[in-house]
Amino acid sequence: MKALRWGEAGLRVEDAALPRREGEALVRVTLAGVCSTDLHIMRGYAGFSGALGHEFVGVVAESPDSSLDGRRVVGEINAGCGECGECAAGDARHCPRRTVLGIRGRDGAFAEYLSLPARNLHIVPDDISDRAAVFTEPLAAAAAVLDQVEISHCDRVAVIGDGKLGQLIARVVATTGCGLTLIGRHEELLRLAASAGIGTERAAEKSYDRSYDVVIEASGSASGFQDAIRLVRPRGTIILKSTFHGAVEIEMWPIVVNEIKIAGSRCGRFARALDLLGRPGFDLEPLIAAQYPLSEGVEAMREAARPGALKVLIAP
Amino acid sequence: MKALRWGEAGLRVEDAALPRREGEALVRVTLAGVCSTDLHIMRGYAGFSGALGHEFVGVVAESPDSSLDGRRVVGEINAGCGECGECAAGDARHCPRRTVLGIRGRDGAFAEYLSLPARNLHIVPDDISDRAAVFTEPLAAAAAVLDQVEISHCDRVAVIGDGKLGQLIARVVATTGCGLTLIGRHEELLRLAASAGIGTERAAEKSYDRSYDVVIEASGSASGFQDAIRLVRPRGTIILKSTFHGAVEIEMWPIVVNEIKIAGSRCGRFARALDLLGRPGFDLEPLIAAQYPLSEGVEAMREAARPGALKVLIAP
Repeated sequence: MKALRWGEAGLRVEDAALPRREGEALVRVTLAGVCSTDLHIMRGYAGFSGALGHEFVGVVAESPDSSLDGRRVVGEINAGCGECGECAAGDARHCPRRTVLGIRGRDGAFAEYLSLPARNLHIVPDDISDRAAVFTEPLAAAAAVLDQVEISHCDRVAVIGDGKLGQLIARVVATTGCGLTLIGRHEELLRLAASAGIGTERAAEKSYDRSYDVVIEASGSASGFQDAIRLVRPRGTIILKSTFHGAVEIEMWPIVVNEIKIAGSRCGRFARALDLLGRPGFDLEPLIAAQYPLSEGVEAMREAARPGALKVLIAP
Repeated sequence: MKALRWGEAGLRVEDAALPRREGEALVRVTLAGVCSTDLHIMRGYAGFSGALGHEFVGVVAESPDSSLDGRRVVGEINAGCGECGECAAGDARHCPRRTVLGIRGRDGAFAEYLSLPARNLHIVPDDISDRAAVFTEPLAAAAAVLDQVEISHCDRVAVIGDGKLGQLIARVVATTGCGLTLIGRHEELLRLAASAGIGTERAAEKSYDRSYDVVIEASGSASGFQDAIRLVRPRGTIILKSTFHGAVEIEMWPIVVNEIKIAGSRCGRFARALDLLGRPGFDLEPLIAAQYPLSEGVEAMREAARPGALKVLIAP
């Protein structure tokens, strides 16, 4: 099969063996999405080499439980050891020996086929198209914010970053009815959010007055965290969503003096994301920038790396 | 009156006017304690100049409410504007216009007299000596940790820093019955904690294996936060207690990937501290390094700045 692989030779579409793993399901990928994490991996993050990609929708080709055969699915990306305390508690996301699709010890979704444990797969309802379902993984990650901080309609919430992740988070947070502002640097992306009914402000014109109850950092840049500290009110909460490679210089004392709470936030629950995708009017189509065939995967990644790029899809 | 003041001329014992403020109580200081924050102010923290010191016990000399006259008191250090939302909710600690004793806009406790609003004062029970009561403020700050994270006897908790603050926090946390380890660099200070029944480990010999449910950073050094990230388990909590001047370089991605929670923690409730000080066997006398008269305040600060120094007291 063909796969878009990152390794010593750089980024290339290559011939690869089918990714069969004992006891797992084999999924034929129909559509995959490029995440900023894929780009960060190419800058050294996670030290991964292999087929990239962890956002996908596909059709089960083979599975230990044949009831899945031929079903359209999306898949949770963390595969646990099945034996540790985390796995025993039903959550592989923090298993210390986990593999992660296209990120850690497991080839990813920019390929004709991928392998995942059957328990990781979720069947996609018929009324959700492939171009919507491919957002399940990043939307679940965006919605994880709501597991980590209670947001009510009385709260003032800022989302930093108008890119792919910030746009998704803003759309999820907007469902709480809170006072929401998306802060970004790209005129066109702020307009896109505004057209979905989201309040926006340009980062350059923003007054940083420590007034937000909750600030969600999704800019993917080192300055985002510093901005978050200047936006959040005393005793407020900062949620960190960006993973990026490299250190940030931070003055710690405002965190202590203002008793700020900070929570890192990663993967979320697929069930909630599929529920959101099925709601009338919850439309992510405007967030799609382009779709490439897998054979043009290198060009797809180049397009996705453009500053301000929205979701780039790859179809094997 | 005499006061130990920090300003353009450096640190000096000087003659100063009585610190009278409209509508407030005048307190004759009988004993004060040196905090690391006082030393950080002399390195630029908070941009304060004036009489230093915010840990004290004293006797009310004059008060608007004469029922306090002659009573032995300790005092909360934040004085709010009385008008903002924070003050209206009964908590001046985050009033944006607050003054803070010996830290922000208000002369401090290394003086014969100080001024505070009467509502800031707490009467000290007779069975608590001056040398115990002088710990009320730092002990309240240490105990604030218990407001920010629930610690049960099942939890593994690490306190980083064997100095004054770490020693107090360890003694407070030990009352929960949790599995507790104080991590430090000073042989003698670790022995002191061990003699109070606290488990200890040398920082140099510590294995950083991301296994603690809660890590409390009280080292007052930039490396403490980095160590905390390497000690805390995925989804665990880090409490930041140190305020220090200067930036720290931090890799943010482990906070996101391991979904770590972080909370800054500052001042705490005096009532709980006075309750702890009244408990039989809760003995802080071993934490006192030396006591100086106010006239030797400069020497007292020098002694307090010695690496590994315990609590230095100043008696006006």
